[in-house]
Amino acid sequence: MAGSTFGKLWQFTSFGESHGEGIGVVIEGCPAGLEIDKAYIESELARRRPGQSTIVTQRKEPDTCEILSGTMDGISTGTPLAIWIANQNQKSKDYSHIADKFRPSHADYTYFAKYGLRDYRGGGRSSARETAARVAAGAIAKLILQKVGIEIIAYVSQVGTVIAPDVERPTKDVIESNIVRCAHSESAVEMENYIKEIRKEGDTVGGMIRCVVRGTPAGLGEPVYDRLHADLGKAMLSINAVKGFDYGSGFDTVSMKGSTHNDSYYTNDDGQIKTSTNYSGGIQGGISNGMDIYFRVAFKPVATIMQDQSSLDEKGNEVTVTGKGRHDPCVVPRAVPIVEAMAANVLVDHLLRSKTNKISDLI
Amino acid sequence: MAGSTFGKLWQFTSFGESHGEGIGVVIEGCPAGLEIDKAYIESELARRRPGQSTIVTQRKEPDTCEILSGTMDGISTGTPLAIWIANQNQKSKDYSHIADKFRPSHADYTYFAKYGLRDYRGGGRSSARETAARVAAGAIAKLILQKVGIEIIAYVSQVGTVIAPDVERPTKDVIESNIVRCAHSESAVEMENYIKEIRKEGDTVGGMIRCVVRGTPAGLGEPVYDRLHADLGKAMLSINAVKGFDYGSGFDTVSMKGSTHNDSYYTNDDGQIKTSTNYSGGIQGGISNGMDIYFRVAFKPVATIMQDQSSLDEKGNEVTVTGKGRHDPCVVPRAVPIVEAMAANVLVDHLLRSKTNKISDLI
Amino acid sequence: MAGSTFGKLWQFTSFGESHGEGIGVVIEGCPAGLEIDKAYIESELARRRPGQSTIVTQRKEPDTCEILSGTMDGISTGTPLAIWIANQNQKSKDYSHIADKFRPSHADYTYFAKYGLRDYRGGGRSSARETAARVAAGAIAKLILQKVGIEIIAYVSQVGTVIAPDVERPTKDVIESNIVRCAHSESAVEMENYIKEIRKEGDTVGGMIRCVVRGTPAGLGEPVYDRLHADLGKAMLSINAVKGFDYGSGFDTVSMKGSTHNDSYYTNDDGQIKTSTNYSGGIQGGISNGMDIYFRVAFKPVATIMQDQSSLDEKGNEVTVTGKGRHDPCVVPRAVPIVEAMAANVLVDHLLRSKTNKISDLI
Amino acid sequence: MAGSTFGKLWQFTSFGESHGEGIGVVIEGCPAGLEIDKAYIESELARRRPGQSTIVTQRKEPDTCEILSGTMDGISTGTPLAIWIANQNQKSKDYSHIADKFRPSHADYTYFAKYGLRDYRGGGRSSARETAARVAAGAIAKLILQKVGIEIIAYVSQVGTVIAPDVERPTKDVIESNIVRCAHSESAVEMENYIKEIRKEGDTVGGMIRCVVRGTPAGLGEPVYDRLHADLGKAMLSINAVKGFDYGSGFDTVSMKGSTHNDSYYTNDDGQIKTSTNYSGGIQGGISNGMDIYFRVAFKPVATIMQDQSSLDEKGNEVTVTGKGRHDPCVVPRAVPIVEAMAANVLVDHLLRSKTNKISDLI
Repeated sequence: MAGSTFGKLWQFTSFGESHGEGIGVVIEGCPAGLEIDKAYIESELARRRPGQSTIVTQRKEPDTCEILSGTMDGISTGTPLAIWIANQNQKSKDYSHIADKFRPSHADYTYFAKYGLRDYRGGGRSSARETAARVAAGAIAKLILQKVGIEIIAYVSQVGTVIAPDVERPTKDVIESNIVRCAHSESAVEMENYIKEIRKEGDTVGGMIRCVVRGTPAGLGEPVYDRLHADLGKAMLSINAVKGFDYGSGFDTVSMKGSTHNDSYYTNDDGQIKTSTNYSGGIQGGISNGMDIYFRVAFKPVATIMQDQSSLDEKGNEVTVTGKGRHDPCVVPRAVPIVEAMAANVLVDHLLRSKTNKISDLI
Repeated sequence: MAGSTFGKLWQFTSFGESHGEGIGVVIEGCPAGLEIDKAYIESELARRRPGQSTIVTQRKEPDTCEILSGTMDGISTGTPLAIWIANQNQKSKDYSHIADKFRPSHADYTYFAKYGLRDYRGGGRSSARETAARVAAGAIAKLILQKVGIEIIAYVSQVGTVIAPDVERPTKDVIESNIVRCAHSESAVEMENYIKEIRKEGDTVGGMIRCVVRGTPAGLGEPVYDRLHADLGKAMLSINAVKGFDYGSGFDTVSMKGSTHNDSYYTNDDGQIKTSTNYSGGIQGGISNGMDIYFRVAFKPVATIMQDQSSLDEKGNEVTVTGKGRHDPCVVPRAVPIVEAMAANVLVDHLLRSKTNKISDLI
Repeated sequence: MAGSTFGKLWQFTSFGESHGEGIGVVIEGCPAGLEIDKAYIESELARRRPGQSTIVTQRKEPDTCEILSGTMDGISTGTPLAIWIANQNQKSKDYSHIADKFRPSHADYTYFAKYGLRDYRGGGRSSARETAARVAAGAIAKLILQKVGIEIIAYVSQVGTVIAPDVERPTKDVIESNIVRCAHSESAVEMENYIKEIRKEGDTVGGMIRCVVRGTPAGLGEPVYDRLHADLGKAMLSINAVKGFDYGSGFDTVSMKGSTHNDSYYTNDDGQIKTSTNYSGGIQGGISNGMDIYFRVAFKPVATIMQDQSSLDEKGNEVTVTGKGRHDPCVVPRAVPIVEAMAANVLVDHLLRSKTNKISDLI
Repeated sequence: MAGSTFGKLWQFTSFGESHGEGIGVVIEGCPAGLEIDKAYIESELARRRPGQSTIVTQRKEPDTCEILSGTMDGISTGTPLAIWIANQNQKSKDYSHIADKFRPSHADYTYFAKYGLRDYRGGGRSSARETAARVAAGAIAKLILQKVGIEIIAYVSQVGTVIAPDVERPTKDVIESNIVRCAHSESAVEMENYIKEIRKEGDTVGGMIRCVVRGTPAGLGEPVYDRLHADLGKAMLSINAVKGFDYGSGFDTVSMKGSTHNDSYYTNDDGQIKTSTNYSGGIQGGISNGMDIYFRVAFKPVATIMQDQSSLDEKGNEVTVTGKGRHDPCVVPRAVPIVEAMAANVLVDHLLRSKTNKISDLI
């Protein structure tokens, strides 16, 4: 059973390769009556696209999209929404220098081991270009979440050894005002410089993205395997280059005591149930409690570096591999919209799944 | 769509509550011809059960199991395997003191918000007692993995502030020789003392489990959403009290450079393809490369503490909640077999999924 | 991917064999707050059980059930409902006479071909005893359908060559007043006599069941593969001994003209949209239109006959097989509740699925 | 959960509308290494397309296709295969005359009831144009089946009151030599004349398609809900205009006795296990036994007729509806490749599912 389908009620299948015709996504489960705002989808794609700033890959992928199905007069009809993002220029490239070589820490060898052959053109299906499909689906998910008051904000919190201080309430305004997408403007400058330095070395570096989800009602998530944070975790870990995920107190929880970690309930002045602390990260027993959901996603350094590396080819011969072309020295600035998109896809899925919790929902 | 089903080809559904009749699991997808070793299943359950040592809850749950279906003369027939672990004694307890109260950092409030009612008897479905079902399914998964030479070893690497040093090659012998299930004997003593101290305070503490999977062939895992590590991550995050997961270089990757992080391929003396380092954690592009898979799982402190805590009841009144009964001061010693079981369930699922990768597999 | 799971949002997995410990079913997706009426479930099981009348098998299977999980104080909690129907007496039987023989038109050979081994005790998993699980799940489904005013009535319309005349509005009263479960009392007598005659010959005979679903709101069913009638058809065809399914005009449609067959819309005195004829069988484009849904299910003669038959054993030797024990001469009287149950399971599944059709459902 | 996805291991999602941009399908689960023969896919589409003969609709849909993803150098890579069939000319049409009217026995009213809005342009998603996606997916399925020696042949056996005599061994040659796609040449002439007559009346008529699957190995199909014939039945019933399905002895079984109906096993001269009769239709207990699988599919008359019909509009007003444009007087000639395609899709799905039946398959 292949793995290009995500979600249960909000279920999408992505298709396409880095250097094929394009990238597409078919979404099943979008309710009828939603305005499918193409300009909004493209604005989200623009946040992910290469060439958007001086610190990302300078490849040109304008990433306009076509809505192939599922709407009439711009409104969703309840039938599958298909979105297509055509590739441009990629097909002309020459990949013969890596056609039979396994680039270190790429998926070349593992795809070959699995399938007995592989699409070596720019990584084929393993390329991060696939994430355009996620961003497109996530954009529509966000349009739905807006209707119920759920907002998702991701931002870069670390690049290599540059760690931004915690920001109490990150805002889109600040995040989108710098090319790193850091919530802390001063750190953003430092990060930008750091990334440029790394690029000069022909090297790459890892980074961290934090994400907060505001406005989630209590009650989203399913016991016991489809806990909201388990689905968020899977969504994040499925993104290219991600090596770790934690939420709420996360890895820090390991050294904490229960007496500190437990979040006490109280009723606020508006009569809403809240917790005095939020180590739970807005999720208890796998189900949202109405507090902010927040989590971290750790990204590894991009595998393509402009340095000679020793490796093997398909026949087992030792070879030297050298990066070519234009690649990201650090993936996180462009990964921010991807993290948001996957979070949105998970939340809409659970929003839809929450509509039959009670017998009274049916009557 | 409810969330008590896990996996795609190795697909199991768990059922039952902490203080109902028992815990059960139905497994779909077990191939015919496997000896279902009941004694082995029970030996795995025994590693998870309460009362097994002085540092875990002293509740008595002997956790014998019945094979309800799917075998003849002890051999799997290819039809659903159902395993039942009856509860004992639990039903007589009195839960009136928490029947309408939301215990801090438990699932009481979120279940109530989701369903409009909840099973307050020992946490009902949200209780970690459900993990017995995972261990039972995982035991059978391990029996399959043994056939193909895959071995899974989990162990405690941290309890609160006590951090065990890295162990080059953890062994079952050492791990099972101490009641903490630490791979480093000296640290185990320290952890044991620490846990006892915490218990005296009426408090609880978090911990970390590491897991290594040896012997995985190259080629397990699916692009792009069902990456092997994404499924492992979801599996771990679905375990009660888990707050974080990372694999390979994990969160440390954030500050690393690509030139260091990339794992170079070479051929070893037996002609096998290996990597000189293993920051990838045995998985590249979501697919296993044949190297050891390793990951970490962060557990929060148990929410039930023997101290007064302020909270709310179902009507919104302020109340005081105090832990009663016998609970774990630290969950990780008993969580080791759960981590192993969920890893086994994921690996068998992907092993089964790998049988139709190539057209030549069909002919 | 094994096939013992049915449905998408109302999803149940059955397990157990004819002569193992018992038959069970785990239901995922039952909303919280439903009274799980055990007496009602058992009354439905009683309609299916052997020994209920003089024209069915005289085996004794009292078929009481246990609710293993998913309720508190008799009310569903939203978590998996497990129901267990223990087998009685079966285990003592001797099956050595057929252990290695392929009974004609049974599943013996095909299971052997598929799995390399088989449970020969009473047919194992291929036994119609499995349908007890469907009836139990269907009983709960019916309890849900009652809340929204949907009623399902099945009845025998043909036994061998005895064809009952059409009945305008079949009633439970008439149907349950005769042991054949025919909606036409006079025909019931004739059918009963016919069945007894067949039994005397040591033979068996086929039969037909009709089913009508009243009170379905317009809008249930999904384009394009999960059409309501496609799911009903699969449900019926999955019942042991079923060879055909049609709905509305069914096979008669083949010789009809569009000018006759089309159902004209009009508004009735209550302002409801109706069709003047109902060749569509209440479903158009795979989606219910609010009219009665009706369909037919064709059952083959039971394969176990009290006559000598030539066959093969596992080694390919020619052997003679003779039926032993107590079997049904005609399956349809006991299949009526099974047909109803599977129809109920499909309708509840689509009822649940219909709750997120429109964006306005989410807000 | 929307219903545009079919299959489990061979899983495809179709998208697109009659008068939108086109029709597409994304296939998950195609093993790597298959030559994706575009010309073959188009030849199958040509068998389905309008305008191919004088007895079908004269609309022009050339139905060429593009392979959007999943191949390199024409070979499948194991990743999702997307196929796109662009619509041509359709968008310019005027549908204002039916925009708010419910055409009798179309899906207009039911889609409106379900979604609160509908795509009225040529039936939108409910149009039989969607079946192009099935044929495309089925063409690739056939390419796989060819590798294992499975052949599928469908043909028209009845048109209105014209019934072709049974043909012992239908051949593609005869079937494709006449425009009705009847396996009996003389009947084909009669059927052709009948259809032309019906068209002159402005009317439409139903028809029957038979299908035989040769070369299936024993062991395909899953107990208990995913029986091979249940999945075939669902596949056929999901095709537009289908009202009934039966297999093997089918509806005739109702009046048969077990002593006649049971198929006796014997070993043929080549040492293969066969049955002397084949009332089982090649499937026993839901699993193939290696004999020919055969089944019937009943199609209703096309709903669009060139006659005035009374109906309602969205506001409940009485209106007159008259067919316009070019429509099929009888759907079965063009439905033959659709029936074959859906059968192929089911068989490949079960072929893939059969690869993990036994533990020995894994080692």
